[in-house]
Amino acid sequence: MTRADGRASNELRPITIDTEFLKHPEGSVLITVGETKVICTASIEDRVPPFMRGSKKGWIAAEYSMLPRATEQRNIREAAKGKLSGRTMEIQRLIGRSLRSVVDLTQIGERTIWIDCDVIQADGGTRTASITGAFVAMTMALAQYKKQEKIKSLPIKDYLAAVSVGIDHKQQELLDLCYTEDAAADVDMNIVMTGNGQFVELQGTGEEASYSREQLQRLLDLGEKGLQELFAVQKAVLGEAAEQIGKKTEEKES
Amino acid sequence: MTRADGRASNELRPITIDTEFLKHPEGSVLITVGETKVICTASIEDRVPPFMRGSKKGWIAAEYSMLPRATEQRNIREAAKGKLSGRTMEIQRLIGRSLRSVVDLTQIGERTIWIDCDVIQADGGTRTASITGAFVAMTMALAQYKKQEKIKSLPIKDYLAAVSVGIDHKQQELLDLCYTEDAAADVDMNIVMTGNGQFVELQGTGEEASYSREQLQRLLDLGEKGLQELFAVQKAVLGEAAEQIGKKTEEKES
Amino acid sequence: MTRADGRASNELRPITIDTEFLKHPEGSVLITVGETKVICTASIEDRVPPFMRGSKKGWIAAEYSMLPRATEQRNIREAAKGKLSGRTMEIQRLIGRSLRSVVDLTQIGERTIWIDCDVIQADGGTRTASITGAFVAMTMALAQYKKQEKIKSLPIKDYLAAVSVGIDHKQQELLDLCYTEDAAADVDMNIVMTGNGQFVELQGTGEEASYSREQLQRLLDLGEKGLQELFAVQKAVLGEAAEQIGKKTEEKES
Amino acid sequence: MTRADGRASNELRPITIDTEFLKHPEGSVLITVGETKVICTASIEDRVPPFMRGSKKGWIAAEYSMLPRATEQRNIREAAKGKLSGRTMEIQRLIGRSLRSVVDLTQIGERTIWIDCDVIQADGGTRTASITGAFVAMTMALAQYKKQEKIKSLPIKDYLAAVSVGIDHKQQELLDLCYTEDAAADVDMNIVMTGNGQFVELQGTGEEASYSREQLQRLLDLGEKGLQELFAVQKAVLGEAAEQIGKKTEEKES
Amino acid sequence: MTRADGRASNELRPITIDTEFLKHPEGSVLITVGETKVICTASIEDRVPPFMRGSKKGWIAAEYSMLPRATEQRNIREAAKGKLSGRTMEIQRLIGRSLRSVVDLTQIGERTIWIDCDVIQADGGTRTASITGAFVAMTMALAQYKKQEKIKSLPIKDYLAAVSVGIDHKQQELLDLCYTEDAAADVDMNIVMTGNGQFVELQGTGEEASYSREQLQRLLDLGEKGLQELFAVQKAVLGEAAEQIGKKTEEKES
Amino acid sequence: MTRADGRASNELRPITIDTEFLKHPEGSVLITVGETKVICTASIEDRVPPFMRGSKKGWIAAEYSMLPRATEQRNIREAAKGKLSGRTMEIQRLIGRSLRSVVDLTQIGERTIWIDCDVIQADGGTRTASITGAFVAMTMALAQYKKQEKIKSLPIKDYLAAVSVGIDHKQQELLDLCYTEDAAADVDMNIVMTGNGQFVELQGTGEEASYSREQLQRLLDLGEKGLQELFAVQKAVLGEAAEQIGKKTEEKES
Repeated sequence: MTRADGRASNELRPITIDTEFLKHPEGSVLITVGETKVICTASIEDRVPPFMRGSKKGWIAAEYSMLPRATEQRNIREAAKGKLSGRTMEIQRLIGRSLRSVVDLTQIGERTIWIDCDVIQADGGTRTASITGAFVAMTMALAQYKKQEKIKSLPIKDYLAAVSVGIDHKQQELLDLCYTEDAAADVDMNIVMTGNGQFVELQGTGEEASYSREQLQRLLDLGEKGLQELFAVQKAVLGEAAEQIGKKTEEKES
Repeated sequence: MTRADGRASNELRPITIDTEFLKHPEGSVLITVGETKVICTASIEDRVPPFMRGSKKGWIAAEYSMLPRATEQRNIREAAKGKLSGRTMEIQRLIGRSLRSVVDLTQIGERTIWIDCDVIQADGGTRTASITGAFVAMTMALAQYKKQEKIKSLPIKDYLAAVSVGIDHKQQELLDLCYTEDAAADVDMNIVMTGNGQFVELQGTGEEASYSREQLQRLLDLGEKGLQELFAVQKAVLGEAAEQIGKKTEEKES
Repeated sequence: MTRADGRASNELRPITIDTEFLKHPEGSVLITVGETKVICTASIEDRVPPFMRGSKKGWIAAEYSMLPRATEQRNIREAAKGKLSGRTMEIQRLIGRSLRSVVDLTQIGERTIWIDCDVIQADGGTRTASITGAFVAMTMALAQYKKQEKIKSLPIKDYLAAVSVGIDHKQQELLDLCYTEDAAADVDMNIVMTGNGQFVELQGTGEEASYSREQLQRLLDLGEKGLQELFAVQKAVLGEAAEQIGKKTEEKES
Repeated sequence: MTRADGRASNELRPITIDTEFLKHPEGSVLITVGETKVICTASIEDRVPPFMRGSKKGWIAAEYSMLPRATEQRNIREAAKGKLSGRTMEIQRLIGRSLRSVVDLTQIGERTIWIDCDVIQADGGTRTASITGAFVAMTMALAQYKKQEKIKSLPIKDYLAAVSVGIDHKQQELLDLCYTEDAAADVDMNIVMTGNGQFVELQGTGEEASYSREQLQRLLDLGEKGLQELFAVQKAVLGEAAEQIGKKTEEKES
Repeated sequence: MTRADGRASNELRPITIDTEFLKHPEGSVLITVGETKVICTASIEDRVPPFMRGSKKGWIAAEYSMLPRATEQRNIREAAKGKLSGRTMEIQRLIGRSLRSVVDLTQIGERTIWIDCDVIQADGGTRTASITGAFVAMTMALAQYKKQEKIKSLPIKDYLAAVSVGIDHKQQELLDLCYTEDAAADVDMNIVMTGNGQFVELQGTGEEASYSREQLQRLLDLGEKGLQELFAVQKAVLGEAAEQIGKKTEEKES
Repeated sequence: MTRADGRASNELRPITIDTEFLKHPEGSVLITVGETKVICTASIEDRVPPFMRGSKKGWIAAEYSMLPRATEQRNIREAAKGKLSGRTMEIQRLIGRSLRSVVDLTQIGERTIWIDCDVIQADGGTRTASITGAFVAMTMALAQYKKQEKIKSLPIKDYLAAVSVGIDHKQQELLDLCYTEDAAADVDMNIVMTGNGQFVELQGTGEEASYSREQLQRLLDLGEKGLQELFAVQKAVLGEAAEQIGKKTEEKES
């Protein structure tokens, strides 16, 4: 089977991650996955939200937005509407929770890492691209903090990336859905995984449809294949910082 | 292993579903799962939201809320705050999407089924109890509509229920977490399934933790066990309406 | 004259007050007045709102809400609309003000008693049922606090209950209007009274109509009759706590 | 007994009503009651709110606001806060309901009369001054409409005015409380009455206090005395329009 | 050329400034410019906004609003809409910024001067009338503070007034546009100037039109002529306070 | 005098305008002015806002936003705050008004051109860069519409660009202020001009300062010099479309 864009069912779209994309943030990337483009930035603030004060731990908070014309049809800005949609809130919570799972928050002290994911062009998979890109931006921000000796070691326990898989109307399983595939899919699943193959998030949804346990297994296989490729891209762009991922944790545990 | 409340790891809490709980709604239940109590109502409105107009299909929309003192500590009302939390939006979207997967929306015409899930007492698992209870309220509302000949047949394709599973700090897998178990869990997963064992939603989250594919398999086994018991409870309380579930669809397909 | 539901014009609907209705709140009741059902809870918080800080006095704040399908037609949630209606605000202010009139706020210290009245089924008289039920929930919460020796005596000066009276299109005066009577009434009056027959609130409204001073007198007679019956119900369910109402105040004054 | 400002307990403050105060509105007055000053305008719009469409009846809607520095301390604008307070909503609803009771809404057709009451200086009694002044503004707006033959007769059934009465800490009953009296009162009551002595609204509140039925009678006597004086002031300023009040209704009924 | 109201192109409308217009504010005026009427008040608060704390300087904040029926057609209140329009925000910012330019904020200490401009009747030029009137209200408030020895000298560096100029469809340049002229103008310019002829604000807008540098010069000439007349009116009403304007600054500089 | 970045006082920062920057919008550019980077898109919608319906004219509406980390310190998103700041509203209104002045709105029919300016990196002059870039995006969108024969001719009457000028603490006049210059400036002026040297907007503000008429003249000279250079950049990137600017209008007028 070939897809609309000529990909095999188990093939990712071309991916690039441009680092140091913006001047001001501690870490920033432009991640491009096919036609999907997301600016991910990591900003470190020297305080935590009220519910964390006194905990001696840090926090990671994520925000997500789309430019009005990131999409085929122009969307009304959430700032103009005066409230965030449920979709936006869901994605923001997902990104934050995912990143928190691979960071040793006790090592960053009472600081907040703000992750901002702004989609400038959307063609499916914006939330997974956001996680994959935000991991790089955050790692680079923390690596810089380490270089400046604001923290002792890089508090990243493992790689983290995300990918979508799905089942189309002909019951074919696909890796990394573009927008037209996503809109037509019976089942849509997002997988967030660590470098050593552990699940952090698994969200599989049948929209007016359902899927069997066997289909689930095949979707997980597809996803794992794609995620290995994403980890390789992350490792390549992280350079020197890549070597420190997972280090501290090992030492601490020994 | 025994749990705080004496249950085995693969044991559900006691469940009751009181039907015709309120006077006005087309369908209404009080579902009690251990100490968790949710009023679920189904209201049928003779129009659909703007994006569905002219589609000749119906829609199912869900809203979820907690009484301020459903919880150990009093929560500020979302109506007083003037906005819904991300958690509430996420749950509302999950309930609506889940129910839509087992209803033939073309058979109900341009009508909206409003599902309201109001938690009057919370002890973990409020979103899964909401889905399990709302399915019964909705089925009874539609069965009444059929009796009144407003629709030709019961447009319910299959049973639908939801349950939580999770992994605690000792890496033990548990079915149907109560609040204290949920708050302490490393991994929390909600499974929404149809009567014939198909997944509608699978949401597994590691909060500052992760889980392996083997653990996932065991969690799915636990969940399926609990869901079979929930389907039995639903069937028992639905009485006559239970027999019509899935009927129409078969005829249509033959 | 007989009413739609067979009552005499000076007859209350059947009333029950179920105490300890919910697990978490310090005090909670389900009050049922005919078909009207309200969950009233009292929560005690160890601080007061900013304008009371340093006053050495407590505060009582009330919130009121209806489930969307408490009514014949489904109502849009105020949380979804993002703001409270004028009617809700008016009722909340009435409940709080009424309860404050019978509590010695200096005896509870800088604490807030949160009263939550959630109407799960509405058939007229929800604000008066809320006051009558909330008085019981609040008294039980404070009685428990006294038992736990967090306060020295029960700071309740007198009983408090509320009832509606009205005048229908045939100029007949009625006690305790149900929804259809209320919707059709020319004059609608809510009376909040203490156990010794003093008025706390009197709100009498002619909707596109008016009433004479003689009619007012007869409405007050009707209301007083009903309120005596409500005090009796409150006394019965309060048990032991009933005996302490008004005690402390007498001692203090002697 | 003499009051702070030298008035007898049953004496109103000096009242003036300046008509045609603003250029644009169909009717407008500046009402001055002692130091309280309110601009009341009546605007007629050729349509009704959605819930009235097709009813062939008109509607009266009222809005109330205070300039930030109408009061001793500057208040934050509700427009800046982004929402109306409960107090404002309560007053708006009271003004609208009161005026609707003396207008034959079927005679104005599907039109809305917007009443705007803007307090430019506050010294107690702003809501009662608003009603008394708004009645004049509205009557003049409708009289002009009649002159322009947009309506056949003046659809005002009777005069309408409002006054406050109260009980102070020494248990003295007072007419027309100024701000310092109001702030210190045990009981505060607003009476809205028609020209022929019928009640339209009666709202009597004990703030952390209560009042007996005998006290209520004396307060009503006081209020009626003051209201007769207010009707005389209204009659004087209305001039020619005064003669038409109540006319049409009589003819119609004969 | 003569204008609709008979004025010459370089003629201001009649202006009056009534001082001590309201009882409560430290300074208050009613400024009347033709048919435009604005209540301007100045309130002094003994604290500054968070971003100024610790600066030992004061702040001036302005708010602007219109009564709903200040205009030909009734406007919806911004308090009812729940948000300020862009136009209102722009005007508020302009008034505050303008006044800050002539006050020595270090001399008032950590205090905020709140300027409230409430338009009760609008006929063009409400923002310029607000600035011209607010300058007088503010000066009188500060003069009173000086008299009460809360500040050492009047911290007003110079006079401040504002006027509009514009170009109509026939390319004629006009001073002080009324509403009908403003609505039809090709170019609309607001000039805010100090007593010694320095610009504080210059905002010239072509609405679907533009203007040459020569036209700009002539507009500035027109504006300067009008502003000199406005300074004279301000000086006349300020009386004794007028003599202290600019004094302190001179002493300080010498 | 030399500036911090080595520029002469009358020198613009380096400018680039990348066209067709995004896939979906009808027109889109990335404009870079020194370190300031703004994505400007033009989207054409086949309807106008309610107040324009039936006018047979089109409309141009602009929205402006900054990424949270476009700035040195992270800003809270306006979508998260739930409302737009006054600054944002002011800028949006300025951009829309400016662009409308050079478009013949009758030629585009009842369509809305949505202009979105999203600042991804800010270093001063974001509003002027937005206007200069948006003009190009809009022109390209309309040129495409003409190519598709949806409109008969390019309805652009002239070029349009904007630049800032200012006066620093040493009374030196500067062209095109970067952020540090802008933050320290006594006077800040934005000039929006058409290709033939007509003013569309002139906004000159003294922040706690003022400026003389002579200074104004020199600032206008500086601005005009910079604007000529901006028109040249626009012309270069517009290519073929550049030749059609102003064409139609000439023909129409002849």
